[in-house]
Amino acid sequence: MIAEVVSTGDEVLLGDILDTNSRFLCEQFKHMGVLVRQITAVGDEVAEIGNTLEKIAGRADICLVTGGLGPTLDDVTALACAQASGQKLVLNSQALETMTAFFKKRGFEFTQDNKKQAMLPASAKVLSNLNGTAPGFFMFWDQCWFFFMPGVPSEMKSMFEDGVKPRLLDIFGLKAEIFIERLTLFGLPESRAGVLLKGFENKFPGMRLGFRAYFPFIEVKIIYTGEGNACDSLGKKMTDAREWVVLRLENKVVSLTGQSLEQEVGLLLKEKKYTLAIAESCTGGLVSNLVTDVPGSSDYFLFSAITYSNGAKETILKVNQKTLEAHGAVHEQTALEMARGVKIISNADWGISTTGIAGPSGGTADKPVGTVCIGIAGPGIETAKRYTFNFGTRAENKKMFTALALEVLRRHLMGHTPSLMV
Amino acid sequence: MIAEVVSTGDEVLLGDILDTNSRFLCEQFKHMGVLVRQITAVGDEVAEIGNTLEKIAGRADICLVTGGLGPTLDDVTALACAQASGQKLVLNSQALETMTAFFKKRGFEFTQDNKKQAMLPASAKVLSNLNGTAPGFFMFWDQCWFFFMPGVPSEMKSMFEDGVKPRLLDIFGLKAEIFIERLTLFGLPESRAGVLLKGFENKFPGMRLGFRAYFPFIEVKIIYTGEGNACDSLGKKMTDAREWVVLRLENKVVSLTGQSLEQEVGLLLKEKKYTLAIAESCTGGLVSNLVTDVPGSSDYFLFSAITYSNGAKETILKVNQKTLEAHGAVHEQTALEMARGVKIISNADWGISTTGIAGPSGGTADKPVGTVCIGIAGPGIETAKRYTFNFGTRAENKKMFTALALEVLRRHLMGHTPSLMV
Repeated sequence: MIAEVVSTGDEVLLGDILDTNSRFLCEQFKHMGVLVRQITAVGDEVAEIGNTLEKIAGRADICLVTGGLGPTLDDVTALACAQASGQKLVLNSQALETMTAFFKKRGFEFTQDNKKQAMLPASAKVLSNLNGTAPGFFMFWDQCWFFFMPGVPSEMKSMFEDGVKPRLLDIFGLKAEIFIERLTLFGLPESRAGVLLKGFENKFPGMRLGFRAYFPFIEVKIIYTGEGNACDSLGKKMTDAREWVVLRLENKVVSLTGQSLEQEVGLLLKEKKYTLAIAESCTGGLVSNLVTDVPGSSDYFLFSAITYSNGAKETILKVNQKTLEAHGAVHEQTALEMARGVKIISNADWGISTTGIAGPSGGTADKPVGTVCIGIAGPGIETAKRYTFNFGTRAENKKMFTALALEVLRRHLMGHTPSLMV
Repeated sequence: MIAEVVSTGDEVLLGDILDTNSRFLCEQFKHMGVLVRQITAVGDEVAEIGNTLEKIAGRADICLVTGGLGPTLDDVTALACAQASGQKLVLNSQALETMTAFFKKRGFEFTQDNKKQAMLPASAKVLSNLNGTAPGFFMFWDQCWFFFMPGVPSEMKSMFEDGVKPRLLDIFGLKAEIFIERLTLFGLPESRAGVLLKGFENKFPGMRLGFRAYFPFIEVKIIYTGEGNACDSLGKKMTDAREWVVLRLENKVVSLTGQSLEQEVGLLLKEKKYTLAIAESCTGGLVSNLVTDVPGSSDYFLFSAITYSNGAKETILKVNQKTLEAHGAVHEQTALEMARGVKIISNADWGISTTGIAGPSGGTADKPVGTVCIGIAGPGIETAKRYTFNFGTRAENKKMFTALALEVLRRHLMGHTPSLMV
């Protein structure tokens, strides 16, 4: 089966926006076991769009099109489709009704410009839009099923889920990939993960792996692409596959459910009824920001001190002046006293700290840019360790140091020893 | 002139990655005054790639292709191009030399797999790759100039700048758009900016505007697309255009040079030799994180307290217990005492604070999700104000509150009165 994706609109061809819609649709096809043959992006021109669609009508089985369904003059997808397929644009009463209802609900005025949006090719059937004004539509043309959706990502996504996906499953007998397991990894590059997991597809026929890197993490997906449904044997097969993967990735798996590191840390703190305080230097607030990105983090997060200056490290965190004089701000002892200090002043169960050199300047031969000391203080534990990374940019260093601090905390919360770390 | 962009590789068609290369190349074409006609993404298949390129060879004038030049078996772009254009793949001695030198410099071993990368279509000329192993190449085919670049974004970008762009300017007589002015806006939606700037292109022939939204900011580009070079009259024309734009956007311009709000704040603090301390509640560290994203921020940033709990607000920031009892954490008086407190304990010139409800829970009828109080304490100034936004997600609220706090500070540093704000 040949599937194609088309995105219309000058914004993409001008480089003003990234075509996230096509990516989403390709991912959805992948989850149904289909590799898209081609993505085409064309501008807001009737002839260009018509020409592109006509060729696809003669060579593909399914084509998903996004964009150009809005009320303004440059929205010409329906017109282009009608002209190229030799149909008239007619007022679609179902589309008009849905739109009128939507406008009424939102208290918007219904204008003539909007009426244009209900003008669809004569053979088209409507796809309802619950999140916006532009109706979508689908039709069979030559040898291909076309589905037209709005370009606004939120509208497109919900229309795909509600109106397009069920029809694809129905018309083509595709199987939705209900079985996807996600793991979150930290502490190894994507290429290394690939090497460690070599042989997976031979070992587990009908399954494959997907990788997505988002620095400094990697998401690994275990995907079941074969026949079958939620029966026991498949459940067991997925469990076996996951165990095989986890075993090979050793201690680099930070989430068995694809959650972020900060979510995992949050769950552990909540579960164990612990509270957390954070002392940051080089990470400048990024650790705290991620921790508080998790809804409900106020249940366990109490306080952070971002102490850039030595003065603040002394007066707020009670880091010993002698420690700073003897070792400087970037040192295991300083990190340890920062973690201890923030734990004590906020009366938290756990304190973690970061102090290092994010760059671009400030590095020395002894402590180059990329050096960080992570400190941790908790029930019966006080320790700190130095790490050196070589990722280059300030932003990457901040991200790496932050992930490391959270991972050190996660391992302590899991009851692992610090020697496990990186 | 017809320009097209082709991206090869299964990763894009599987939805595993976003096609940022095509976006970059479209943007570059735009800067040379060319709207790309079509973007095509195809997988790692010889026949697919060859077929796509052959059609483009017969209809376009320029085609930029990325991906498929690596050492592994699934890198087939050169082979596909050779077969479809009826040429042999031959060992290109210049490509081989460049690669050998690169490997030697990096201390890598040169393998037979790498030698494959120097096999190019017979008529191809080499494009050097200074950042990686894969040589690029260019050739004329049918009626079109093709340029083949690696898929790794950093390698592609530098090859484009060094090897492709100069040739495009030369072969097609394109003018690089040397005159681009950027402004950063905060406090209005993109559609509103468009309305306020209507009429620009009639008023300033040869110039146009570009918009890019990155919540909660908008970047406006003033682009000179006509003839001319760096002469006085054009300089004056750009100044006039910028003044016209700034006048219409009133006080929504946060940077006249396209810098981020935190960079502008940093420049002002440095210039006036002021220091800064930050007290955050609902923003959870995001204000501090952005402030410390700016290299050299340790010159002015001293300390932040992220006080999620009321206890931390009292003990660390010395917010009056009675204030918290009478008004709660989200109140102008609390924000004011937080800003004052963090300024005093860190002995900074300026203190700013955020306290509000980022959601998704925690809102009340009186103080719904999206409510924030911003406090500021500086030389001769102490004030706080409440704002309510309606953006929905926790992440968006954190971003909006953060931008607002920095903008309030920026206006004070510029000597504007707080009444100007939003």
